[in-house]
Amino acid sequence: MSVTKNIKIISMGVYLPKKISSNQLESQYQLEKGWSERYSGVRYRHHVTSETNAYMGAQAIESALEKSPLTLSDIDLIISASATYDQPLPNQSSLIKSELKDGLHYNIPTIDIDTTCLSFITSFEIASKMIDNSQYKNIIIVSSEVSSKGLNSNNPETLTLFGDAAVAAIFSYDNKQSSNFIKGAMNTYSEGVFHTMIKGGGNKYFFKDYPYDEELYSFQMDGKKLLKLAKKKLNLFVNNFFDNIEYNLEDVDVIIPHQTSKMGHLLFRNSFNLDESKIMNNLLMQGNCIAASVPLTLYQSIVDNKIKRGDLCLLIGTSAGFSIGALLFKY
Amino acid sequence: MSVTKNIKIISMGVYLPKKISSNQLESQYQLEKGWSERYSGVRYRHHVTSETNAYMGAQAIESALEKSPLTLSDIDLIISASATYDQPLPNQSSLIKSELKDGLHYNIPTIDIDTTCLSFITSFEIASKMIDNSQYKNIIIVSSEVSSKGLNSNNPETLTLFGDAAVAAIFSYDNKQSSNFIKGAMNTYSEGVFHTMIKGGGNKYFFKDYPYDEELYSFQMDGKKLLKLAKKKLNLFVNNFFDNIEYNLEDVDVIIPHQTSKMGHLLFRNSFNLDESKIMNNLLMQGNCIAASVPLTLYQSIVDNKIKRGDLCLLIGTSAGFSIGALLFKY
Repeated sequence: MSVTKNIKIISMGVYLPKKISSNQLESQYQLEKGWSERYSGVRYRHHVTSETNAYMGAQAIESALEKSPLTLSDIDLIISASATYDQPLPNQSSLIKSELKDGLHYNIPTIDIDTTCLSFITSFEIASKMIDNSQYKNIIIVSSEVSSKGLNSNNPETLTLFGDAAVAAIFSYDNKQSSNFIKGAMNTYSEGVFHTMIKGGGNKYFFKDYPYDEELYSFQMDGKKLLKLAKKKLNLFVNNFFDNIEYNLEDVDVIIPHQTSKMGHLLFRNSFNLDESKIMNNLLMQGNCIAASVPLTLYQSIVDNKIKRGDLCLLIGTSAGFSIGALLFKY
Repeated sequence: MSVTKNIKIISMGVYLPKKISSNQLESQYQLEKGWSERYSGVRYRHHVTSETNAYMGAQAIESALEKSPLTLSDIDLIISASATYDQPLPNQSSLIKSELKDGLHYNIPTIDIDTTCLSFITSFEIASKMIDNSQYKNIIIVSSEVSSKGLNSNNPETLTLFGDAAVAAIFSYDNKQSSNFIKGAMNTYSEGVFHTMIKGGGNKYFFKDYPYDEELYSFQMDGKKLLKLAKKKLNLFVNNFFDNIEYNLEDVDVIIPHQTSKMGHLLFRNSFNLDESKIMNNLLMQGNCIAASVPLTLYQSIVDNKIKRGDLCLLIGTSAGFSIGALLFKY
């Protein structure tokens, strides 16, 4: 049995860099016109020009703070929940905090949590376990992702799929007990550990020994193997997830899946007998923004009034590693 | 007030790569004989030859499992608590799990938590919040660090200070309530955000645009500024830490500081009026192993019978970002 925890999303903020149409990418990389949207399901995505992960993350936090009754002085913890980063050291959350306009004035602890595309979901679960009515009353989770630098110009599948974005959410301990975390879970299936990767740029293929090479330093994805593995594992994962809690998948009001890909959406939709209007989708307009996709879709669904206070929401997705993760909460 | 949590370190395991003496480094880099130990306080450290972070981490976990009554099938969560990594993607915990001999057979969730040198301390706090008597009964935290690849051969201060190591600890929910987590806390002081860093190798100075250059891709540390900032903040941090709990610093039986540097040790010792035999030190024999230093010192102190069950232990350290963090627990 999982223990529910009184945690409420108070506000969210978003920063999106320059909008790039599929037409632009197709012209730039000599791709067949219309191929991107047909193949990847993406019409627009955003790509950084000069922005860093830290800058985008800080902008998203400032925006979330502006929409909330809180100021930075009320925040007890900042979690950076992302797969990409500005520098190998220090950690991304420190860099983001240092770009906040009042970042110097408050000694808020900063933590990085990385489960690649599931980072926001994992961080939400961890924040739910940490939040209390004393030391950690208000927690910011920020997912700031720059995917565009690590894309391989010779691989149209990934080149057209990914976008950049930063999304911040402010979580508060909910005294009124109207909003809560119900359950989080993740499984890591190591047979898929290398289905998605960037090889170069760590200790294994160190910069000094492996000069820049687009193949080695770019994102690689074996889409077919990923889909096959996800298909094999998804149903059992979801069944187990709902096994020992008081809700069923059918009770869920809104499902926010990671915006993996067009095929990923189809796989998810076809795996369960669900009312399609419950499944949120912004792949067309934003692409796959790594860990920022889940909170971006959540944000958009709230703005579009598709999620109301008290709704039972399921965040669910897959990540490099290979993992499936989910989180159930009452908004 | 912090809430204590019944969590017990069941066993620990260590992997150390090849031992390198200061004499060897001094010969190799034309340094004055005896300089390393005199300046950095380090006589030996370990450096990888062909090992990866994942390999070392997996070896440390296997060793911890062997010493415990558990097998991998009992483990509910693996946290990688490190600043360095094999590849930018997937996350390090997935890579470590995939190298475990039974890694394929169990779908244990894998999470990376990075607060640079404080990663083990932060992960211990988070594990304490997550651990329960159902979903997360047994949690592994593993810190596997390869510092040696990112050291600048022109900077003797860092070249002689850092070592490589992997340490794993298995934490279990303690039904007998004899061991527990008491409090964790961290402050991030953004004025020190760039006092310690590796610039190259992320989105800000991307590989493609910034070819390998030892200065750009190596660890940089402004030792003087770090010490000055730590000195300014340490006392208040420690006072606040003990402010609202039932223990004082004087009640602590054993202090395990991060093995920052010789000067770092002196600063810590001179900041508080403490019995020096309480303060654990393995800088001489291992160097600064980034996030692996705290658990390595903890491990060594347990092996040497300097820590006994029931002892009140304080983990404390600084990290890039710049942060100070601490955790109080009953071993």
